[in-house]
Amino acid sequence: MRNYLFETWRTVARRYGCVEYESPILEDTGLYLKKSGGELSSQLFRFEDQGGRDVTLRPEVTASLARIVAAEQRQYPKPLKWFEIGQCFRYEKPQKGRGREFYQFNVDILGEAGPGADAELIALAIETMLAFGFTAADFLVRVSDRNAWLKFAEEKGIEAEKMAAFLGLVDKLEREKPEVLAEKLAGFGMTLEEVEAFVSNPENASDTYDLIRADLEARGFGDFLELDLSIVRGLAYYTGVVFEIHDARKSMRAVAGGGRYDTLINIISDGAVDLPATGFAMGDYVIRNLIEETTHAAMQMEVWLQRNGAGCEVYVVIPDEVRRGDALRLATRLRQAGLSVDLPLSHAKVAKQFQAAEKCRARFAVIIGEEYPLVKIKVLASRTEESCDASMLVEWMLRRISEPDGPLLA
Amino acid sequence: MRNYLFETWRTVARRYGCVEYESPILEDTGLYLKKSGGELSSQLFRFEDQGGRDVTLRPEVTASLARIVAAEQRQYPKPLKWFEIGQCFRYEKPQKGRGREFYQFNVDILGEAGPGADAELIALAIETMLAFGFTAADFLVRVSDRNAWLKFAEEKGIEAEKMAAFLGLVDKLEREKPEVLAEKLAGFGMTLEEVEAFVSNPENASDTYDLIRADLEARGFGDFLELDLSIVRGLAYYTGVVFEIHDARKSMRAVAGGGRYDTLINIISDGAVDLPATGFAMGDYVIRNLIEETTHAAMQMEVWLQRNGAGCEVYVVIPDEVRRGDALRLATRLRQAGLSVDLPLSHAKVAKQFQAAEKCRARFAVIIGEEYPLVKIKVLASRTEESCDASMLVEWMLRRISEPDGPLLA
Repeated sequence: MRNYLFETWRTVARRYGCVEYESPILEDTGLYLKKSGGELSSQLFRFEDQGGRDVTLRPEVTASLARIVAAEQRQYPKPLKWFEIGQCFRYEKPQKGRGREFYQFNVDILGEAGPGADAELIALAIETMLAFGFTAADFLVRVSDRNAWLKFAEEKGIEAEKMAAFLGLVDKLEREKPEVLAEKLAGFGMTLEEVEAFVSNPENASDTYDLIRADLEARGFGDFLELDLSIVRGLAYYTGVVFEIHDARKSMRAVAGGGRYDTLINIISDGAVDLPATGFAMGDYVIRNLIEETTHAAMQMEVWLQRNGAGCEVYVVIPDEVRRGDALRLATRLRQAGLSVDLPLSHAKVAKQFQAAEKCRARFAVIIGEEYPLVKIKVLASRTEESCDASMLVEWMLRRISEPDGPLLA
Repeated sequence: MRNYLFETWRTVARRYGCVEYESPILEDTGLYLKKSGGELSSQLFRFEDQGGRDVTLRPEVTASLARIVAAEQRQYPKPLKWFEIGQCFRYEKPQKGRGREFYQFNVDILGEAGPGADAELIALAIETMLAFGFTAADFLVRVSDRNAWLKFAEEKGIEAEKMAAFLGLVDKLEREKPEVLAEKLAGFGMTLEEVEAFVSNPENASDTYDLIRADLEARGFGDFLELDLSIVRGLAYYTGVVFEIHDARKSMRAVAGGGRYDTLINIISDGAVDLPATGFAMGDYVIRNLIEETTHAAMQMEVWLQRNGAGCEVYVVIPDEVRRGDALRLATRLRQAGLSVDLPLSHAKVAKQFQAAEKCRARFAVIIGEEYPLVKIKVLASRTEESCDASMLVEWMLRRISEPDGPLLA
């Protein structure tokens, strides 16, 4: 299952001309301190190593990416389009949609400040969902722009240093009780109605949003978009357009999320490098759940797993140990021709060998028996038998493996 | 490069009918304490998590495998043929052939006590090397049997509890100074000459070794084998045949190593499960070095990386922003047909766009210009130009991408 996610992620990223990079799992805790602006999450998997260094099992990849890009960006033409599929860690009790160890697909475009980069990134996120077999009936992309809120805050006279706390409340519009929200908003001199009115008025969308929408409509992805100013993303470092992918019923956590972070590289590099950037991440837990709960996506995965998963194509049956040497030689030749082959590793009854062939879902059983060098081949699904000379076995098998078994005889 | 290793490892393991499994990166330190028989390596990446638990970033995968197999083996038919490609950690200064974070390819066959399993495993290790393009001139498999040493020790009257220390000296035969070795062996009442004579006498090989050799010869892999009793593997838990793969000049650390460990599952499960087992691991560092230093293996990797690596197949050139919408639509169609496509994300001069096309090693530049819906296509290697109607572009491209460009005109 993990491989299905990885292959799909990788395939889509490559279609978009993205380059895969690697970053370490262990980072100095200071990196996350810088990135978060001084506040560390209690979910951080942080510890002191034997050398007395304060290190952290990365909770996400963007900090490492920013560190690497800040150090190495000079050698690459811009924009950078980079992706990584990597393991991340969260210190908390495992629960549905979350695990202590998880994988994240990260895509980032760096060095392009215009809305074309945001649109390219959102298009890539949408095509990732399409590649899993999802349709417009299954998911939507909720897009927002933090700059719209900055303008709102300016009009309402919210001070800059209170902005993060205010956006924290906006982030909770869907989840927090209205009374609680109203009370907290009062602290900013604002009513819940004012905020909700702002969210629900499409005219508050920024010009940038309109340009991104037009771009994505040209690509044929307009149907997936929903302007939703209540999306602000929890993290402090986003600077512009942000987005989340949700299941159509919005019954789960976000499947993916991201946005523009034009100042992070500057912060991580202590002011040495300025590079506009936008990126998103998709974890493996929520997408797994959504695939499993969506019939056509689940079926598509099943077919892939059957083709790429456990088991083998050919099982070599050895009725008499005297033929083991010949069987080993033929099995090796079949494997070297690219076929997946299993065989009994010690003496076993023939019936047991056929059971093993069934259990590993082999399509053919090759019997190296008394008639050798004549080899009998049993097509396990149709229970029909054919035969060929040992010297022709590889050729026979390569031809047959690419053909269907044909209709079963009644 | 990592992906090249992973894909090669995975391909060979599947040909052998092995099933991929996943195990966690973080384990309770107690697991490694059990496995090592109470002695913990100073290279262990060990720490206390926020919940006060003593945890370790896994140094290798076998302990986790043994834990999982002990718990779940009942549900699977035997033998189990399992593999994992996973990240491991070592607490030490990075040096050539070693890194703090590294990947390991692990293959294990469990539930089969006979030499057929050892031979199958060694064959898989050899075919992994062949898949990287190595030949018999590049590497060899040094095979030994701990039981030969047990017999030797019995004859020489070495007590059982001193066996581990004695094998530790045998392990150092190639690396330690003769004077130092001789002095230490004297403590066991033995001379260096006695030990070296035992190592160099092929008659000391066990019957098991002979059976494995015959099996591998039947497969056509006899040339890769070298009986070498000086190989005993450092770890305490090996119980029978052990082996290492080395570069032909033996100038590097072992590329891979493994062997039989028939008692480990019993130890890890506190006596609940008994399951004979044999396995090997190949790290990513030494194999990387060996590939890079071996011309034909390095070239094979280069070709793979060119085909699967960075860059894109098609670059869409947009001479005038008025055509961006059409360009986006066509780029999306090409991507959805499986092609790797890049395009400028904001306005750029045409010359700069062609530079970008070269930099991402595109094969075709598709120009969405004044003549649209007529589309010009430039074959970048031959600098020839063709054209087609926008509605035919995907079909044109799919046909052309599978053909070579043809000879360049002088």
